[in-house]
Amino acid sequence: MELSKRAREIQASPIRKLNPYANSAKKRGIKVYHLNIGQPDLPTPKEMLKAYHEFSDEVLEYGPSQGLDIYREGLVKYYGNLGIELKVDDIIVTTGGSEAITFAMMVVCEVGDEIIVPEPFYTNYNGFATMAGITLIPLTTYAENGFALPGNSVIEAKISPKTKAIMLCNPGNPTGTVYSREEIFRIADLAKRKGLYFISDEVYREFIYDGLSHTSVLEVPDFEENAILVDSVSKRYSACGARIGCIVSKNKEIMSSVLKFAQARLCPPTVDQLVANAGIYLPETYFEQLKVEYQSRRDLVLSELEKIPGVICKKPEGAFYVFAKLPIEDAEDFIIWMLKEFQIDNETVMAAPGDGFYATPGLGKNELRLAYILCKEDLKKAMYIFQNGLAEYQKLHIGKASS
Amino acid sequence: MELSKRAREIQASPIRKLNPYANSAKKRGIKVYHLNIGQPDLPTPKEMLKAYHEFSDEVLEYGPSQGLDIYREGLVKYYGNLGIELKVDDIIVTTGGSEAITFAMMVVCEVGDEIIVPEPFYTNYNGFATMAGITLIPLTTYAENGFALPGNSVIEAKISPKTKAIMLCNPGNPTGTVYSREEIFRIADLAKRKGLYFISDEVYREFIYDGLSHTSVLEVPDFEENAILVDSVSKRYSACGARIGCIVSKNKEIMSSVLKFAQARLCPPTVDQLVANAGIYLPETYFEQLKVEYQSRRDLVLSELEKIPGVICKKPEGAFYVFAKLPIEDAEDFIIWMLKEFQIDNETVMAAPGDGFYATPGLGKNELRLAYILCKEDLKKAMYIFQNGLAEYQKLHIGKASS
Repeated sequence: MELSKRAREIQASPIRKLNPYANSAKKRGIKVYHLNIGQPDLPTPKEMLKAYHEFSDEVLEYGPSQGLDIYREGLVKYYGNLGIELKVDDIIVTTGGSEAITFAMMVVCEVGDEIIVPEPFYTNYNGFATMAGITLIPLTTYAENGFALPGNSVIEAKISPKTKAIMLCNPGNPTGTVYSREEIFRIADLAKRKGLYFISDEVYREFIYDGLSHTSVLEVPDFEENAILVDSVSKRYSACGARIGCIVSKNKEIMSSVLKFAQARLCPPTVDQLVANAGIYLPETYFEQLKVEYQSRRDLVLSELEKIPGVICKKPEGAFYVFAKLPIEDAEDFIIWMLKEFQIDNETVMAAPGDGFYATPGLGKNELRLAYILCKEDLKKAMYIFQNGLAEYQKLHIGKASS
Repeated sequence: MELSKRAREIQASPIRKLNPYANSAKKRGIKVYHLNIGQPDLPTPKEMLKAYHEFSDEVLEYGPSQGLDIYREGLVKYYGNLGIELKVDDIIVTTGGSEAITFAMMVVCEVGDEIIVPEPFYTNYNGFATMAGITLIPLTTYAENGFALPGNSVIEAKISPKTKAIMLCNPGNPTGTVYSREEIFRIADLAKRKGLYFISDEVYREFIYDGLSHTSVLEVPDFEENAILVDSVSKRYSACGARIGCIVSKNKEIMSSVLKFAQARLCPPTVDQLVANAGIYLPETYFEQLKVEYQSRRDLVLSELEKIPGVICKKPEGAFYVFAKLPIEDAEDFIIWMLKEFQIDNETVMAAPGDGFYATPGLGKNELRLAYILCKEDLKKAMYIFQNGLAEYQKLHIGKASS
């Protein structure tokens, strides 16, 4: 008996697949700095966790498939604060941003249809696409110019009769790229002319540095029919374990179909929605402090990376990742080697190998993603270990190659 | 711009799609007895809710994709108490039974493949199948003989080269049917001979009456490669809002692929797993009391249904549903009419229309599902309203038909 093609072909998460090496290092008493996963170390706001402590319903009931009213009203307020006017019916709460992406893909694409997405992209898009039978058509972007979007002619050349959407992650995971207002409007204009949906993954909206501002797909005028936003509370509130996201669109036909998908799985977790909702009423200073902290972390990691000869990496303007090209051949081999063979004072570093963030086979072999989600003290130690590990690995590798 | 075929074709949940009528009735000040949805009224055990109150981590982190270790170890104990020996790696925790079903379908079926399932079946199988591009091949069963499984020759006639699995819900939603040990072994034998997987949805395992006992697909000897169990804590602990389920198989290839699906969506909700885990350590009397309560509810609803002339319905032996054939033409029209037009002392009853529980078009039009998930006092009132409403509706209908 053979499993399905999708079961055999789905990629293991490059973020998580090397965990057995990390676990084995830990069993040997080694401390691992986990720069492989976007799991922020900042405390979840106490105001949010209080919602767990205060839950007093007698019965832990199903909520509505579209999400709890109180939370959807909270989200209307949250987006309103960003200048985006919504009605509750424009929003369906999902189990994490993951489910929002799955719903968005499935609602616009039939099996065999295509979505254009700049690569490197959030690696789990691959998994969702495989499960849904969708083909991701990559627009390759390059570390050398900060993963800038290509011009319209390059994008248009990728459009086929099967293309249903363009998907952007803004700010980008894993690249940290922030698309300008002009770029978002340009892509929206192209999508509109070509009759495509524009799926915008904006879970890192608040992680944006150097005084830049964020442009949401929902800000594009006369674009209601095409715009689909996917979002999540995981990163902005250090609340990854809540598994609460949402999908937003003013296209009523889309929302009516998404609701049917949502009804099949009944509802997102109930109490976690109350936790997410409490985040909406945090003081404004919360995001200001967040930004200051992550910007200084980025600066630290970047300045350390820049010291390494041969590393190619422009300064990312958003999210909390650096996607760097290394002067080695096989980043995954290097990451495994770091976990198995290298440590300083019984400590080592784990990164995520780059190739899993591409749809084009062979790309990203010499790249990796570092998440700057630790305090600066730890980041400093981690980068020191990383630099020394890389130098050591290069020596070994050159030795091997010439032997 | 057109949405995808699956977006256009996915069925609205028959359990939830009539909610607007219920909401409108409520706005008119009418109390609605919700017998349409399997949302138990019994309190969630306090020992479980305590896990919310006691959550004291600083950061609400992602858990492992396969579920928290502590909870998977708890599940080993839970299944062990049932006489089913498992290792933690045989279990992956899911976001509700819903996700477990989706994973099971996707891991065995490629787009276009088929799963054989007795109908009427849990209506959301339709939604998951549509999303995954799978065809459900129904084995029609009948109210007249308690929805008994057909013989092997009938089942074998449904098997095509595209058939990958047989799926049973045991005890059955919406039928309440409990399959005997002989039947489970017969289906397992057939599946093995034909090289098919056997997906068993056992979320109602503990809801089993008249001294009958439950047979899990995991109890079939020499069936490790074929057996896939999907499960959920929603019903057994009145914990629907936790959204915690699991998928279990001793087939390592299956579990390795499911893990990759699971990695794409990162993890199930963290704190809700701790809540689910607390359920495992409830005293044994918990399930005994549950059984006594639901059996007496079933007896009440059945005895009231039996009083109605023309209703066809054998006594269900498990779960908490009755799937009844009514002496009318259109059960959905009747349910809507009850919500819009009929009340006694400002109260009415909502049921789930039957046709959405079938894959064969046209079946179930004169059937509906009642969930006996309210206390007996409320059930008594609800059944009184139901009986009187049905009589009134029949009069109106006969009047209309002859005019």
